[in-house]
Amino acid sequence: MTETMNGAVALLRTAEALGAQVCFANPGTTELVLVRALEEVTAIRPVLGLFEGVCTGAADGYARVSGRPALTLLHLGPGFANGVANLHNARRAHSAIINIIGDHATWHLPFDAPLTSDIESLASPVSGAVIRLNSAAHVASDVAAAFRKAASPPGAIVTLIAPTDVMEGSAPEVVAAPSPDLRPAAQVPEGQVAACAQLMAKPGPLVLLIGGAALGERGLRAAARIQEASGARLLMEPYPAIVDLGGDLPHLERLAYFPDDVIRQLGDAKVILAGAREPISYFGYEGQPSQLVHADRLTELASPEDDTVLALEQLADKLGAAKTGPAPRAPAPAAPPPGFSPAAIVEALIALMPEGTIVSLEGSTLGGPFLQQAHRARRHRVMTNTGGAIGQGLPCAVGAAIACPEARVISLQSDGSAHYTLQALWTMAREGLPITVIIAANHRYGILQTELRRSGADLDQPVLDRLTQLDQPRADWVALAQGYGVQAVRAADAESFRAALQQGLDLAGPFLIQAELP
Amino acid sequence: MTETMNGAVALLRTAEALGAQVCFANPGTTELVLVRALEEVTAIRPVLGLFEGVCTGAADGYARVSGRPALTLLHLGPGFANGVANLHNARRAHSAIINIIGDHATWHLPFDAPLTSDIESLASPVSGAVIRLNSAAHVASDVAAAFRKAASPPGAIVTLIAPTDVMEGSAPEVVAAPSPDLRPAAQVPEGQVAACAQLMAKPGPLVLLIGGAALGERGLRAAARIQEASGARLLMEPYPAIVDLGGDLPHLERLAYFPDDVIRQLGDAKVILAGAREPISYFGYEGQPSQLVHADRLTELASPEDDTVLALEQLADKLGAAKTGPAPRAPAPAAPPPGFSPAAIVEALIALMPEGTIVSLEGSTLGGPFLQQAHRARRHRVMTNTGGAIGQGLPCAVGAAIACPEARVISLQSDGSAHYTLQALWTMAREGLPITVIIAANHRYGILQTELRRSGADLDQPVLDRLTQLDQPRADWVALAQGYGVQAVRAADAESFRAALQQGLDLAGPFLIQAELP
Repeated sequence: MTETMNGAVALLRTAEALGAQVCFANPGTTELVLVRALEEVTAIRPVLGLFEGVCTGAADGYARVSGRPALTLLHLGPGFANGVANLHNARRAHSAIINIIGDHATWHLPFDAPLTSDIESLASPVSGAVIRLNSAAHVASDVAAAFRKAASPPGAIVTLIAPTDVMEGSAPEVVAAPSPDLRPAAQVPEGQVAACAQLMAKPGPLVLLIGGAALGERGLRAAARIQEASGARLLMEPYPAIVDLGGDLPHLERLAYFPDDVIRQLGDAKVILAGAREPISYFGYEGQPSQLVHADRLTELASPEDDTVLALEQLADKLGAAKTGPAPRAPAPAAPPPGFSPAAIVEALIALMPEGTIVSLEGSTLGGPFLQQAHRARRHRVMTNTGGAIGQGLPCAVGAAIACPEARVISLQSDGSAHYTLQALWTMAREGLPITVIIAANHRYGILQTELRRSGADLDQPVLDRLTQLDQPRADWVALAQGYGVQAVRAADAESFRAALQQGLDLAGPFLIQAELP
Repeated sequence: MTETMNGAVALLRTAEALGAQVCFANPGTTELVLVRALEEVTAIRPVLGLFEGVCTGAADGYARVSGRPALTLLHLGPGFANGVANLHNARRAHSAIINIIGDHATWHLPFDAPLTSDIESLASPVSGAVIRLNSAAHVASDVAAAFRKAASPPGAIVTLIAPTDVMEGSAPEVVAAPSPDLRPAAQVPEGQVAACAQLMAKPGPLVLLIGGAALGERGLRAAARIQEASGARLLMEPYPAIVDLGGDLPHLERLAYFPDDVIRQLGDAKVILAGAREPISYFGYEGQPSQLVHADRLTELASPEDDTVLALEQLADKLGAAKTGPAPRAPAPAAPPPGFSPAAIVEALIALMPEGTIVSLEGSTLGGPFLQQAHRARRHRVMTNTGGAIGQGLPCAVGAAIACPEARVISLQSDGSAHYTLQALWTMAREGLPITVIIAANHRYGILQTELRRSGADLDQPVLDRLTQLDQPRADWVALAQGYGVQAVRAADAESFRAALQQGLDLAGPFLIQAELP
């Protein structure tokens, strides 16, 4: 450690002491003092992205998989803005992320140089807190406050604005790790657990809607015990940040997307929320409600801020459930579906996905079919798009692979959303990450066409076609991947897809399959 | 025209009446009512981008070249956020842009559905005004107000937030075009012009620093007369939105980038500002000033809000300058530079660029050398990166080509910044745009390495190398272009570059040259 330390080194040393191990960076001139500090603070690994959305999406994936806070390093307001979409998703996922934005020197800011903008205004919508670092001497305590906010359950994004003169200023040496002093998850009052148990003892259909941290192994094993004891159906929130699936874990139904489907799916069941929000329509549709379950059928066992896992275990105990939960049912082998379809891709995945795979899932073409069958696969984890900002899948896969180098990562990706952050492919190649990317290439915005059809529109009209079809020209994902240094093949039938998948899984580095769907 | 009209149709009909001809769109579910309205309002051409930054950058290029307002259509807060970086540049360019953001139905907004975010907070930093449309009945007057703000000199960005229920509501028919009622550019008081003339009559070195609208043909011809009469050096602001160059137009020096270079360049000259801002350091460097010209050497003839062109003509008259300006000097032919370098690329451009070319310039590798020699080329226009948010060049080229279909567009593009919005290549292919893209491929963040060297850093350190070198792996721009349907070749010497450039210029559609610089 150097004798003198500047604000940038103090910032990173404090972050290191509080558990930061990776910084997803796309630096510019105002971040160079931090880049030089990264040279000194070698415990923090810098990972370069060619676009800021890659950095923020990777930070999100990293935080979801590791549970550790992730750093990003971004260039002023515009660079940060490029990362906002994936931070929007990360905020919904409660991912612990500390953004570091280099800013002009405080004395230069009043002159409105070209890159000056209102960073606070851009950062606030996705940040639990925005902290402007005002003095090198206070950097360590400011950073400790940021980690406290970010890493306390359920997790939050904190954005640090770091002016160059503050980063270059003299800071006191960071001698001891500042205490992170994290707020623990709130324990659910016993009465609330007891009330749920009483409710579940009454007759009538029951749904346990599980979300957030309860979708990890411990929560799910408790949920399985509750199911066994009460007969409740187990549902997961529609877009989990990360969920454990497959192997001997219980089969979770997924809450549907469209409001009429949700209403049909839930029927007149009482719904108990365990870390999930109440079912809300994704969009507002004229004549349909926003709230999809009437308040008198809703009961909250635990909110996302609570210790949901503990609450589930206490509820299982209260219900007198057996300690071990039910024996897993052997899933029935599926008949191989005819032709090439999302279902065929899913069957290949179920057959070949190795134990411990992490799936980064974006888009409904493969997302829906995969989550219907995922319980039949070996044990794995799935990250979904929590906030609806597209361009999450590929960057999240990058972050997952860096968080968990021993795991195979599979990116199940619709083509429309893949375009937003395709630069992630370069980082996959650069870092040699074991990611197998499957692009569901239907060359259209499928969800928009579905919505248009539901609203009675005729898709053959020229403008609707022009704004929802992507087939003129068709993107060649094999060429795009190769352009970024990633090996790639095209597969247009089930057999060649399965062979391509095996080829990808056998590689130590990244591989892309353009699944050309009919 | 239909008997009944919804808010979305009213919005677009009003926009059409006020001069909107193109909408650069990346729609999502909340914009589908506007997509359907585009089906009806056929005078507005929808142009699809695969990423929002492509749409906003294209809108900027379109507005700069055509002088007409451009529309964008973007999806909620996260979609808008992806467009912020190029809107930051457009704001600095004073481009007239109307963003339309679909939002949740007003009655759905309180339920904080996944895609909900604080759109106003995201939009404010780049918008001269943010208008939330509250009623279909008032859409036409709200849109007229937006155009008034956007199209009044010097031009501004206005963001409209359009909730789906308001867009679906009943609107009164738009019978007559609402008056745009634009505020004209302010005329500079005669005394101010006279004061400048008196100042220029005094002995000592003089610089006329020209910016904004004064960089068009009329302003430059007036500037040439002033130069002839006063001996003033003509400089252009360092990052013009659009400037006319070449042919018989006067040779403009470009204001330098680094503060010490600017100080050297200007010496002890008196500086007269004509539509340009006072010289400010791009970044703040310890020990160097932010303001690069002392106030007592600065005089403003006209601000960007003023009628700068008229002020220059009045000044020329006051100085008794000849009406026609000096005869252009025939530029000396340059010796072809040895080897392959930016200078060799520039010489090929000067030889081959057709009259009326529009150049979209991003990055210093080609930008600096090109602007030094541009006066030797045939008449052309150049757009530069006004705000420093990178990823502008390719989208701006798209917008320019759509604004001016008869022109050849050349995108002179550094590779580092090209990655941010490479999806623009797809729109070039889809629309068959006559754009010749030249990627200066040096596989590094050159500007960061320059800044690090200036600050005394040793570039051989692993982290500095890792965060500024892009050569592991090297992006293959030929593959990336082909992936998006654009023909492409690689050129690694001057002769093959020249042949490739001719090949590209002969094509009706887009073409990319990866200029592999040593």
